Amino acid sequence: MNKGLLIVVSAPAGSGKDTILECAFKSCNNLNYSVSATTRAARPGEEEGVHYFFKTREEFARLIENNQLLEYTEYAGNLYGTPREYIPKMLEAGKNVVLKIEVEGAANIKKLFPDCVSVFILPPSFAELERRLRKRGTETEETIKKRVGIAKIEMSFVKNYDYVIINENLDDAVKDFIAIIEAEKLSTKHGIPVIG
Amino acid sequence: MNKGLLIVVSAPAGSGKDTILECAFKSCNNLNYSVSATTRAARPGEEEGVHYFFKTREEFARLIENNQLLEYTEYAGNLYGTPREYIPKMLEAGKNVVLKIEVEGAANIKKLFPDCVSVFILPPSFAELERRLRKRGTETEETIKKRVGIAKIEMSFVKNYDYVIINENLDDAVKDFIAIIEAEKLSTKHGIPVIG
Repeated sequence: MNKGLLIVVSAPAGSGKDTILECAFKSCNNLNYSVSATTRAARPGEEEGVHYFFKTREEFARLIENNQLLEYTEYAGNLYGTPREYIPKMLEAGKNVVLKIEVEGAANIKKLFPDCVSVFILPPSFAELERRLRKRGTETEETIKKRVGIAKIEMSFVKNYDYVIINENLDDAVKDFIAIIEAEKLSTKHGIPVIG
Repeated sequence: MNKGLLIVVSAPAGSGKDTILECAFKSCNNLNYSVSATTRAARPGEEEGVHYFFKTREEFARLIENNQLLEYTEYAGNLYGTPREYIPKMLEAGKNVVLKIEVEGAANIKKLFPDCVSVFILPPSFAELERRLRKRGTETEETIKKRVGIAKIEMSFVKNYDYVIINENLDDAVKDFIAIIEAEKLSTKHGIPVIG
């Protein structure tokens, strides 16, 4: 019962995932992000082992070669991967680990960690998703259309997740996320408590 | 997604089940007890269709005969039963129904309603259970020993439940119960939301 939970979170860009998680991390004292390995250069304030494990291209290639990554992907010219040993080590130490990952990566993680809790976060509608993406002011019209298109495709993966949160209102969505974690801690799936 | 949840709750006598449910009913606006049929006479303040469906022995016998009860049992000379139609009707109307029932009845309900959410409430220890039963001041020493013995036997049923709440502290146990309901409402087991 004292093992941590692995919480896999997927969501279309613009669904508010990062804000929900940020608020949930403030309310729950035992949530930890899964730390990814990356070849991206550290940005100011980013710490080794906290935000990322920073690797050179060569080091990253060796991680792949030695089967030390659960999964990896290339994005905007940089490699990102989930270290194989990191998650089990955290869970064994009783820490709850949150892994933000796209739908295909999530499916792979579910195979490797069948006990993981998977959560999909949705915007209340595609029109609202488009509105939120436009509001950012950082995305081109083309990117917005593309992101909404991807979100529609991702809908067919929703059924593979354990839970769906519709982010209509931030406070409610945060409460939902926390309720899922609290309930899962009580689930007999993860172990049967014994009383003396 | 708008169907109600059936929440099956079992607990040894002295575990604090009734107090937890009473508090949860005050915080949640959509919880309803499953109303049982009984041959017991109505006590002052008890209303037909709210606390029980009051039946004569003959009427109750007819319910059994016509297969209109999901299950029934005799206790202290009175018959108690769960009307077959009541629960599905409530669930279809979007109402969450709480059914307090002992372990064998719960197993039968799980077969009939595989989507139901089952919760077992435990005291923090058997010693504490004994202390709580003794504190009531209404039970004989023999009854206390018997109830603790039954609680120990019931432990082997805990693994059949979806969730276990250990009632160490009332407030926490109430929060746990509410978190389970909130999380289950988001579970894809009960349906996949569709956004427009």
